[in-house]
Amino acid sequence: MNRLPAGSPQLLRQLNSAHVLRAIRTHGPISRAELAKTIGLSKPTVNEVVEGLLGKGTVLESEANGAERPLRPGRPARLLRFRADFGHVLGIDIGANKLLVVVADLNGDVIASERRPVRARERADAAGLLKQVQAAATNALAAARTRRSLLQAVGVGTPGVVDPATGRLSLAPQLGGWENLPLGRRLQRSFPCPVFVENEVHLSVLAERWRGAAQGIDDALFVQAGYGIGGGLLVGGRLYRGANGAAGEIGYLPFTDDSPPRDGLGPFEHAAGGSAYARHGRRAGAAGGGRRLLELAGGDLDAIDAEIVFAAAAESDGAALRILDTLIKRLARGIAAAAIVVDPRTVIVGGGLSRAGEMLLLRLERELAELMPIAPRVVLSDLGEEAVALGAVRLAVQTVEDHLFGIAAEAV
Amino acid sequence: MNRLPAGSPQLLRQLNSAHVLRAIRTHGPISRAELAKTIGLSKPTVNEVVEGLLGKGTVLESEANGAERPLRPGRPARLLRFRADFGHVLGIDIGANKLLVVVADLNGDVIASERRPVRARERADAAGLLKQVQAAATNALAAARTRRSLLQAVGVGTPGVVDPATGRLSLAPQLGGWENLPLGRRLQRSFPCPVFVENEVHLSVLAERWRGAAQGIDDALFVQAGYGIGGGLLVGGRLYRGANGAAGEIGYLPFTDDSPPRDGLGPFEHAAGGSAYARHGRRAGAAGGGRRLLELAGGDLDAIDAEIVFAAAAESDGAALRILDTLIKRLARGIAAAAIVVDPRTVIVGGGLSRAGEMLLLRLERELAELMPIAPRVVLSDLGEEAVALGAVRLAVQTVEDHLFGIAAEAV
Repeated sequence: MNRLPAGSPQLLRQLNSAHVLRAIRTHGPISRAELAKTIGLSKPTVNEVVEGLLGKGTVLESEANGAERPLRPGRPARLLRFRADFGHVLGIDIGANKLLVVVADLNGDVIASERRPVRARERADAAGLLKQVQAAATNALAAARTRRSLLQAVGVGTPGVVDPATGRLSLAPQLGGWENLPLGRRLQRSFPCPVFVENEVHLSVLAERWRGAAQGIDDALFVQAGYGIGGGLLVGGRLYRGANGAAGEIGYLPFTDDSPPRDGLGPFEHAAGGSAYARHGRRAGAAGGGRRLLELAGGDLDAIDAEIVFAAAAESDGAALRILDTLIKRLARGIAAAAIVVDPRTVIVGGGLSRAGEMLLLRLERELAELMPIAPRVVLSDLGEEAVALGAVRLAVQTVEDHLFGIAAEAV
Repeated sequence: MNRLPAGSPQLLRQLNSAHVLRAIRTHGPISRAELAKTIGLSKPTVNEVVEGLLGKGTVLESEANGAERPLRPGRPARLLRFRADFGHVLGIDIGANKLLVVVADLNGDVIASERRPVRARERADAAGLLKQVQAAATNALAAARTRRSLLQAVGVGTPGVVDPATGRLSLAPQLGGWENLPLGRRLQRSFPCPVFVENEVHLSVLAERWRGAAQGIDDALFVQAGYGIGGGLLVGGRLYRGANGAAGEIGYLPFTDDSPPRDGLGPFEHAAGGSAYARHGRRAGAAGGGRRLLELAGGDLDAIDAEIVFAAAAESDGAALRILDTLIKRLARGIAAAAIVVDPRTVIVGGGLSRAGEMLLLRLERELAELMPIAPRVVLSDLGEEAVALGAVRLAVQTVEDHLFGIAAEAV
């Protein structure tokens, strides 16, 4: 963003323009007269700025429709509105199991999407997976009746740590051949606009803040509790990435004195994530006490997983409840550690384990109250499996907003 | 800070004034001509603003002294400088063992100070301790040849958690009668300027960022490792307080499955702080293997503490080295947990244990490299025991700066 000397007429015009555009987006549809009153600028100044914005195409001016029209008679007011379709953005979620591409307008409202499963052999082939991303993007853009050339920004979510300086991926064992991949630069070739790559859990944090459980909350810890366990931090209302883009990687919390697990997972996620439910469930199933677990798995010991343990626990099965108590205590210990470090207002739990609902929530709250001097509120995420793509949209829209409105914040 | 409509002439004047004052402070002593060139404003504008600042007394204009005078002949230039003595601030460190009050100018340079020991019975008497603070402040102000009425801001450091909303203290078992004390409001009665109370470790973070190991580093974890263990976070260049002012309270990290310690300490500080060195040292001394420890303690088992364990280890005493290995491993595990959560560029270790120097540093680095996927740099603090008072000065100066320069950042 270019800096102009404080007080130059050019700076002043840019400040005014950003100010007016933001006000139209926030308060619109709005008449010029109301606009001038709302933001405290003179009518001639507002008129001058509005003509500029109309010329650029970022706002529209048209007659009020029925609902908007005031009751008093006279010439119908003409209203200004932000053109959310002035451009589009893409949100892309490249997960270990699925690929999701959504097209959204500049308000972040989703217009079209394309979802594809990612199969085991595809996970191991970075080039092939990137081709799938391209094909899905092409289809989603067609469904949204827009063109690649009109895209303003692309947000991309991926497992692993994204280095903020180089854009390179690391610690992404879920996807073969992704270690050290310059994903952003690779995707940049295919899009005419800026491409931003971010860790998937970090994007979930953005989504929670935008349209989920963290709306209006400035300081939150998001915990993605599934097969692995990841986390993300909302600090002062903004996603905090850390020095290496690895903030919130709580799966690596040093949980016990044991030597590190050999399954590629970090110590905490190994001890308290989905794989621990499967391990404990299978052990119980083999020992006989877990008869109900084995039944629910159709007699196949290897099919016992977290979902089956939760289902049995919901039926008050003793073995399942004991597993739950042990493993939720562990989960709570890791979450407490993270929450003690950052002191969040709220802990939001998402991911597969969050589907256990109240069973999980009540136990977690009780444990945290015991482990922490000042315990945060705990809530479950309700964004579901579109969270990462939604966060990617938010990231993309944010950068467009920064471009449209940002000069005001940067210039002085 | 009051908001003015974007583009109003009044706002513009305030922007220019803050801009010029900041430039004089950063680049001064500086002539009006150079100033205009540096900040890109016209000479008439600069002259108008400078006259206003001279009138307020925040800048001085005088002839260049010998060193500053340019070599070419002619009329000696008149230079503008920021009047750091335009006002003074107080930095107050109310610790469990000492009370330190420093008087500083608006550059934060210390002019005078007063230090008093805090004895056990004084710790238990909140009213008496506050009287001591007043007396020390009066003496320090007299030594600095300034008056209470000229103070611009007061920063105060204290053990415990300071609620950002209410200013009330909690979790401060070190000081009797301080639980729930509205310390800021109580001190506010005695000073004619704003009083800001902050947790002592948070102030150390400010000091490290300002004049210590975190200079130029935006993302750091500070660990105060003494009898207790506390922490503080630097996030994006700013102290992060958390939702309840409790960010960084890592002494409470849930360290083991054991029931919580009964000494008022949190689980982590109980397991790895100064008290653990004393416990382990005394146990070794009693068992016979710690003969050297007992000697260094003058034969008094109860006198064995962390300092004696470190001294014996420096002589390569086997028992002391074993204690060090065990306890530094524990310290590393807690620090790794905190660092995994926030991903700092640098970990700064201060407090009594940091006096062990290289012995501690090398072991810590080795352990962190093993426990973390991306390990931060580890350094020892060199600010010594003035860190908290220095941080309090920084906090106070910061608020004065916000008042003098802040309009520019807030107005648009």
